[in-house]
Amino acid sequence: MQFDLTILGSNGAIPAHDRHPTSQILNYNGNHFLIDCGEGTQFRMNKFGIKRGKLDNIFISHLHGDHYFGLIGLLTSFNLNWREHPLHIYGPAGLEEIMNVHFKHSQTQLKFEIHYHHTTADAPRVIYEDHFLQVETIILTHRLPTTGFLFKEKKGLRKILSEKITEYSIPHAQIPDIKKGEDFTDATGRRIPNAELTADAPATRSYAYCSDTVFTESFVEQIKGVGVIYHEATFVDEHTERALETFHTTSRQAAIVAQKANAGKLVIGHFSARYESLDLLLSQSREVFAETYLAKEGTVFEI
Amino acid sequence: MQFDLTILGSNGAIPAHDRHPTSQILNYNGNHFLIDCGEGTQFRMNKFGIKRGKLDNIFISHLHGDHYFGLIGLLTSFNLNWREHPLHIYGPAGLEEIMNVHFKHSQTQLKFEIHYHHTTADAPRVIYEDHFLQVETIILTHRLPTTGFLFKEKKGLRKILSEKITEYSIPHAQIPDIKKGEDFTDATGRRIPNAELTADAPATRSYAYCSDTVFTESFVEQIKGVGVIYHEATFVDEHTERALETFHTTSRQAAIVAQKANAGKLVIGHFSARYESLDLLLSQSREVFAETYLAKEGTVFEI
Repeated sequence: MQFDLTILGSNGAIPAHDRHPTSQILNYNGNHFLIDCGEGTQFRMNKFGIKRGKLDNIFISHLHGDHYFGLIGLLTSFNLNWREHPLHIYGPAGLEEIMNVHFKHSQTQLKFEIHYHHTTADAPRVIYEDHFLQVETIILTHRLPTTGFLFKEKKGLRKILSEKITEYSIPHAQIPDIKKGEDFTDATGRRIPNAELTADAPATRSYAYCSDTVFTESFVEQIKGVGVIYHEATFVDEHTERALETFHTTSRQAAIVAQKANAGKLVIGHFSARYESLDLLLSQSREVFAETYLAKEGTVFEI
Repeated sequence: MQFDLTILGSNGAIPAHDRHPTSQILNYNGNHFLIDCGEGTQFRMNKFGIKRGKLDNIFISHLHGDHYFGLIGLLTSFNLNWREHPLHIYGPAGLEEIMNVHFKHSQTQLKFEIHYHHTTADAPRVIYEDHFLQVETIILTHRLPTTGFLFKEKKGLRKILSEKITEYSIPHAQIPDIKKGEDFTDATGRRIPNAELTADAPATRSYAYCSDTVFTESFVEQIKGVGVIYHEATFVDEHTERALETFHTTSRQAAIVAQKANAGKLVIGHFSARYESLDLLLSQSREVFAETYLAKEGTVFEI
């Protein structure tokens, strides 16, 4: 199953150096999840060939504009393109009021339903679930109520060993139950334990989105062993005080979080407009956590 | 005095083919006037080197999103960049409510004042005036209340002829009055008529912004003799019915307006996303009005 992340926008609050406000697309087997939606997200989707029609779920971390100002334009384009299937938006309660005041003044009649799922920043909660994936909120610490999002692949079925099917003449009809973990009883009444017939399901993959937040280890336990973590890294070491004042993180601090969480890979983004070059952000993070990568726009990361 | 127009965005409602929603900058001697502010306007200003600090007046034609969704991002960036001088916004009354709901949820405290000047689409009115320019609304006919904007350079002072200063020994102190049109009385009491001493002020320049609107000649008298007219031209001839239904214009109809107004030059824009090539829009307009130009993004037109 395809599971990858495309960076659409990577800059902090003020767009600069041809970097755009935060947004990214998580693609699970062709199903697109949009995470944050800064101004211009719909242009970025066009640019990187992301199909709007495959997007049914949008996750908004908090109500600073660089994380949602592109939402009203995207919804309006859906409507102008005659979208009819429902859309789910997960984010702070204020989003609904903001979208509705736009729709009121433009006299927009939506052709599709929007289901708002209000997130709260008090405790982690499962907010989305389908056959393959589960999404839970991560509680972040910022100037406004803010949540990250942990996307976890569900444990799959056990893998049946083909040579055992032959050896024990296992009928086709019983295979689904064996994949679920049941033992097999053959024609002579002999019981073959499941462990002999199957191998473990492939390791499940996971992605943690953590932006915006001050440096905190408060959610490390929740994301322990995560495959890929995206963590904001607004500042370099020299501006550690400024990071604290503005409830943001340095790239070195982001690396500490990734290290403590025993993550596979760290992607850093939400860069301050003051840095034209991102080299120092990257090198300071790599001093702590070697597997750090810059969230360059258009880059695709395998989860 | 510099007086020119830079196209920032030229597409209709749905961004496509790397064309962006409507916005443009009118530059009068370094003073920037922003006309409409579709999503991404602040990125386009960066791209074309337009300085945000020189912008004090923003004109919004109507409340369809492709004409104003970029405003909240621009205001937020002003604030993050510590703007302190006031900003004037001319547009429909709803704008203020829309901006305020965003500011409420992001807990934004503005560091500068915004003065909203509410436009109405009932009759043309002078909404802006300074030493050099006057701006009046143009009443357009669209699905929402919509106004265009007519920028008119004020008649300058008459030009005094230097040989007459010598001939009649005109004292320096009297020149300003003569430039304003007064006659001159010399030391012998002889009265020299102003017409003998001065030439006409240079011709005044003007720019009419007309978008969005159905085809109408209702404002032709008001803009008669305009130097440059920007007129929406959403559709080609083949889609004339569709233009009527959606209260838009074909490029041929835009040309008729320019012709009847005896305009110097016509710039067409607000192109439908259905047209990747703009050739037909241009050629159908030029059949009626030869001096037609496409509003290509980044193009600068002298007024």
